Amino acid sequence: MKIYRINMNDLSIKTEEVPREWNHLGGRALTSAIVAKEVDPTCHPLGAKNKLVFAPGLLTGTSAPNSGRMSFGAKSPLTGGIKESNSGGSASQKLAKLGVKAVIIEGLPAEDKFYNLHIDNNGIKIEQETELLGKGNYEVIDRLSKKYGDKIGVITIGQAGEYKLCSANISVKDYHGNIRSAGRGGLGAVMSSKKIKYITIDDTGAPGVTVANPEKFKEASRLLAKSLKEHPVTGQGLPTYGTNILVNILNEAGGLPTRNFRMGRFAGANKISGEAMYETILNRKGKPTHNCHAGCVISCSQVYHDAEGKFVTAGFEYETIWGFGAVCYVDDLDIIAQADRICDDIGIDTIETAVAIATAMEGGLIPFGDGQGMLNLLREIEKGSPLGRIIGNGAGFTGKAFGVTRVAVVKNQAIPAYDPRAVKGVGVTYATTPMGADHTAGYAVATNILQVGGHVNPLAKEGNVDLSRNLQIATAALDALGLCLFVAFSILDNPDAYQAIVELVNAQYNLNLTENDMTTMGQSVLHNELEFNKAAGFTAKDDQLPEFFNEQIPPHNTTWDFTTEELQQVFNA
Amino acid sequence: MKIYRINMNDLSIKTEEVPREWNHLGGRALTSAIVAKEVDPTCHPLGAKNKLVFAPGLLTGTSAPNSGRMSFGAKSPLTGGIKESNSGGSASQKLAKLGVKAVIIEGLPAEDKFYNLHIDNNGIKIEQETELLGKGNYEVIDRLSKKYGDKIGVITIGQAGEYKLCSANISVKDYHGNIRSAGRGGLGAVMSSKKIKYITIDDTGAPGVTVANPEKFKEASRLLAKSLKEHPVTGQGLPTYGTNILVNILNEAGGLPTRNFRMGRFAGANKISGEAMYETILNRKGKPTHNCHAGCVISCSQVYHDAEGKFVTAGFEYETIWGFGAVCYVDDLDIIAQADRICDDIGIDTIETAVAIATAMEGGLIPFGDGQGMLNLLREIEKGSPLGRIIGNGAGFTGKAFGVTRVAVVKNQAIPAYDPRAVKGVGVTYATTPMGADHTAGYAVATNILQVGGHVNPLAKEGNVDLSRNLQIATAALDALGLCLFVAFSILDNPDAYQAIVELVNAQYNLNLTENDMTTMGQSVLHNELEFNKAAGFTAKDDQLPEFFNEQIPPHNTTWDFTTEELQQVFNA
Repeated sequence: MKIYRINMNDLSIKTEEVPREWNHLGGRALTSAIVAKEVDPTCHPLGAKNKLVFAPGLLTGTSAPNSGRMSFGAKSPLTGGIKESNSGGSASQKLAKLGVKAVIIEGLPAEDKFYNLHIDNNGIKIEQETELLGKGNYEVIDRLSKKYGDKIGVITIGQAGEYKLCSANISVKDYHGNIRSAGRGGLGAVMSSKKIKYITIDDTGAPGVTVANPEKFKEASRLLAKSLKEHPVTGQGLPTYGTNILVNILNEAGGLPTRNFRMGRFAGANKISGEAMYETILNRKGKPTHNCHAGCVISCSQVYHDAEGKFVTAGFEYETIWGFGAVCYVDDLDIIAQADRICDDIGIDTIETAVAIATAMEGGLIPFGDGQGMLNLLREIEKGSPLGRIIGNGAGFTGKAFGVTRVAVVKNQAIPAYDPRAVKGVGVTYATTPMGADHTAGYAVATNILQVGGHVNPLAKEGNVDLSRNLQIATAALDALGLCLFVAFSILDNPDAYQAIVELVNAQYNLNLTENDMTTMGQSVLHNELEFNKAAGFTAKDDQLPEFFNEQIPPHNTTWDFTTEELQQVFNA
Repeated sequence: MKIYRINMNDLSIKTEEVPREWNHLGGRALTSAIVAKEVDPTCHPLGAKNKLVFAPGLLTGTSAPNSGRMSFGAKSPLTGGIKESNSGGSASQKLAKLGVKAVIIEGLPAEDKFYNLHIDNNGIKIEQETELLGKGNYEVIDRLSKKYGDKIGVITIGQAGEYKLCSANISVKDYHGNIRSAGRGGLGAVMSSKKIKYITIDDTGAPGVTVANPEKFKEASRLLAKSLKEHPVTGQGLPTYGTNILVNILNEAGGLPTRNFRMGRFAGANKISGEAMYETILNRKGKPTHNCHAGCVISCSQVYHDAEGKFVTAGFEYETIWGFGAVCYVDDLDIIAQADRICDDIGIDTIETAVAIATAMEGGLIPFGDGQGMLNLLREIEKGSPLGRIIGNGAGFTGKAFGVTRVAVVKNQAIPAYDPRAVKGVGVTYATTPMGADHTAGYAVATNILQVGGHVNPLAKEGNVDLSRNLQIATAALDALGLCLFVAFSILDNPDAYQAIVELVNAQYNLNLTENDMTTMGQSVLHNELEFNKAAGFTAKDDQLPEFFNEQIPPHNTTWDFTTEELQQVFNA
């Protein structure tokens, strides 16, 4: 295995051996370790001192189920703290098969020119890019697939990235030619600051990943797959309805943030629910069930067509549908699908952008519920107009632009699709994760609402700090392995599945790790990240939800009532 | 003396006795004490928990020279920390004569309506305001002078304030009907969030300020006035050329930040210098010498006319001329005067706005040197367009909007007209004052460049931390007394003048303070402010200059080279 280091100051490329301490790190564990070690925490996120790092997970490139995620890391231009954001798509597995442990992109080019990178079995090439500048991700992927063939792996930024907007994501092509996103924290702006428009990855002739004990690996793999197939969430709910199964569940639970977090239930929920979407997809001959990377046994993705049966978008997620739906008070799934498509194409985080638009609605720019106005705002982002730059820099930025105080952000990152007053465990995660408000960093919704891994009352404080802490640690470990977060549903209810994951790592690397070692790895990831943020100037004051969550949210009329001291208990691991 | 407390939640007004611990506080000492005591440091600056406080200085309303400043305080929407910004004009003296120690405006109105306040000898009245909404400060002052007579005191916000922009100032009418500004930190947005468009102050029949020992007061007053008249800076330089005398001085010293802080000298300096301005004013029958409040013996203000001899602006300051001049690379004084007029009228900080425009120039929005483009951007602010909202939210915000890394801010407040690499004492002040980058918080330019109060080498580190510390403490005390900062020139060179100031306080309040007590008061003000900021989440990481100041600045080719540890020595008082 090797690390590629690309210095944009002089366009030089180095192949480095993997330092021993990083040998058994991957994914988020590796990106965060590299960022923590090599990036000055006080640097400007878009300046020469920041670095963009990406790394496949420890299990990526093998046949282990759901192990194909790639982590991207850097200092975030959105939060000002350390950031890891991971995505599906094919690039991660291809990189792993090419023996690439991580890619580090550092420095800034002296000249104002864009470049592309091509990674294959012969190494990396860097070339100036002019042709695809200003193009959206769909066109970039299409053109590169024509040039290199359908199987080419692509990592790219759209116009939002080129404008260095703080919500710009990094987009990754999947095996179907669709778009997967490392969405949160504006890492697309970091890629753009390094002047990289796209990276192509060709694994033709790649050596592939060595597994020390193939028999043991196969057995653990089979066990994990079986467990995922048997669990009601990963075996039935997600494959049928996608993540959007959550609209009805959260609405029922009173935790679906509606009209910029005013209510926990949305009158239009049934029109945008997973069940409604499933029917629509079937009627229009789309695909209700679809995967984001090879080896996925859940397949929570889908392909959504318009009324004429034409492709609109794939990977149409609950958080996106909530964002452009309930929080903006729009109940038209076709409009929301268009919003998702535009965001994928221009390369911008749907959660951040939807909450930014809800914030602009709060400020009176357009009315709540104005679906066409919402789409127009997305077109402004595509154009890079001043208004587009406001929205495209996220909810916090939009709030300042329009003098709005009701702005749902933590560490300047938009709060996702679960109201923290009605799902308190995930509220603790929003407040305390080093990532800024992020449901995936400690998905307490599982235990609060879905009753996976036991049950902790979502409306009370008791148990939710412990729940969030445990999940934050476990998630950091899963992110290190390159596993899809949804594997957690299975391991929370089935100790054998957790053991199978440990055995996958042991079988691949010839190790004797235990579950405790996984916990230690997760803790160590969080430790690196928290230390980085502290050195960047973060304090306990940053681990808070916005003031307005002291308002009661109907229907349960609960408020956010954790003290700073209570929240800081998350870090007593 | 009394405190007025206006609760905008229910539009109630209370008259309160002055608590004993605030009896001998005024100006900044009082606003910072009240904000530190009553405002939750983590609150949203535009939310219900912030308070807008204003207070005349301890000596304000008396015949003491240059004692008519008013301090405004709140949590700043620009910096997120505590803020005091003070201004000339007539309101402060009128309030003091009415026996008002401070006004505290708290809460937020339930309805989306604006109000005005009228303060006179009968108390305060609050009324809904509709007529003057959307109007600029010149029209507001003109209309209110017609309604109440020329002598009416006015505190108002322009359109920038109404839009709650983070650079919006609070504007104060002077005795000539011109506009003075509490410019820094966006306190106009706080006034707007409280839904106050303007405050009128009528001191007809006011009891006036009691002086315990009038003879002693008169003698100290005479001594201070004499000292100010005799000092070359306050007796000759400032009265003749205004603060703009500094353009040539800073240019000569290589510390005039030019073209977004790339160079320390500006080729066009002679065209925008105080000397050039003086000639132009004389030729056009303006007034080269003019005061901002009654009792000023310096009169550094002036009235600037256009080529047709029509009034354009008054109080045409060095920092404004530097900002719209050197830093934006514009060498046309008439254009700069128009920029000043627009900023006064719409009520926005000239320093923040000029640096924001330079930042937008850096991002390629308009070219450096494009004076008409600069004026167009100010008109966008007036309109409240998306572009205007970007620029009007300051340099840091504009940098984010356009993906610019070369952004001259500390604590998100724009760095003023003295390059910190060439005037290191003021650089230490920029980095460490709780106010965010602010030359007035510890004006080391005096000793670094003007050789007032001795000399400390502006290009070396030695002595500059001590210099900044001493000046920050002394300034906090002067700001408490309501004295103009320029009094410092005199007291730095003349111990008798400092003693005279102490005697003024003793004579007015029948006290026996010493110079040490003044130091203690200054320290205590800083202590309150630093504690507030710490509780708001500030750390030593916030006490830094931006990364790009590690570049050499010609002609001296010095860099900013203080470590965090060296800078923190400022607080070892």
